[in-house]
Amino acid sequence: MDDVSSSSSGSRPLRSGRRPGVSGTRATILDAARRRFADNGYDRTSLRAIAADAGVDQALIGHFFGSKLKLFVTVMEPPFLPQEIMPRVLEGDRSDIGRRAARVVVALLEDPDVRGRGVGLLRAAASEPEAARMVRELVTRELWEPLAAGLGLEDADLRVNLVASQIVGLVMIRYILEAEPLALLSSEELINALAPTLQRYLVEPIS
Amino acid sequence: MDDVSSSSSGSRPLRSGRRPGVSGTRATILDAARRRFADNGYDRTSLRAIAADAGVDQALIGHFFGSKLKLFVTVMEPPFLPQEIMPRVLEGDRSDIGRRAARVVVALLEDPDVRGRGVGLLRAAASEPEAARMVRELVTRELWEPLAAGLGLEDADLRVNLVASQIVGLVMIRYILEAEPLALLSSEELINALAPTLQRYLVEPIS
Repeated sequence: MDDVSSSSSGSRPLRSGRRPGVSGTRATILDAARRRFADNGYDRTSLRAIAADAGVDQALIGHFFGSKLKLFVTVMEPPFLPQEIMPRVLEGDRSDIGRRAARVVVALLEDPDVRGRGVGLLRAAASEPEAARMVRELVTRELWEPLAAGLGLEDADLRVNLVASQIVGLVMIRYILEAEPLALLSSEELINALAPTLQRYLVEPIS
Repeated sequence: MDDVSSSSSGSRPLRSGRRPGVSGTRATILDAARRRFADNGYDRTSLRAIAADAGVDQALIGHFFGSKLKLFVTVMEPPFLPQEIMPRVLEGDRSDIGRRAARVVVALLEDPDVRGRGVGLLRAAASEPEAARMVRELVTRELWEPLAAGLGLEDADLRVNLVASQIVGLVMIRYILEAEPLALLSSEELINALAPTLQRYLVEPIS
């Protein structure tokens, strides 16, 4: 993420002598964008405002990231590596995979940084079809495909969709609608409520 | 809904001689608002545009509905009566209540009008905290409280939250993200996938 080469494919190559400064500027833009998107949502955040916060010319954001939507997706990428998360779910007895998945999901959602990006992705996906498409591509690549590959079951893609439906709905009801009593459950109570659902979606008969 | 007396509490009393015209105007505004909100979402819909579509002065919308948010909630109220839906879930053997609930939910979501309002409510709730609060109040009053009362269990409010989390997540993944293969399931496959989850959330041990 900090490497200039990971910026959008439309950007011109940069001389290596400029890299430290460019890398710092890029990080400053990402910080400003993260705050703006978190505070105001996708729709109400403008590149002009992000550029002003970061103290850079707006054209530089286009140069680094290509578009507002691509900047958003870069900002909202999960702050963890799927290859570090997935073994915590997939390794071990399949009879207990639902509880392990619930533990990992709840631990991630109780981290304000991860939860903030999850809520940001949901907000954006709900706002317009183009953002929904990019969010779907991001979560498919970063989360759903690694999990489905690790499951190794014929209908793994559907199972992963069902798991996602329960987790996305939990985020919506607990953290966005803040409906009680679900918003008041402890992590342990939440894990107990989710584990059997995820167990069935992951490895038990679903049709 | 067609009665002028149901408009916002801030409106002035209207002479009965004007009622037919007023009722027609109110319906015209609601139609225009429904189209605008469905096409553009809550944030990007202005009262000015709705007034123009309906061919009325913008002040008249304030007079009838009080605010954009109140107009939105009126437009998005479920096009069915909870007292007609709930018996289809609650009456009968409790050992099969999850499947009955899944059948009712899937039938409602496969109705484009109901699904459109559900998606509209989700979009609005995701957009800003004030809209989330109003959506939560609407679904609590129209759906969650009648279901919890009918269940008659001590932890019914939490059970209803959990049911809502699964249904909201399904709407998000199937109809907004349009993730496949979940978006491609038939009604019957969807009912089979959901029924055991709803069964447990409604009446089986959850903690």
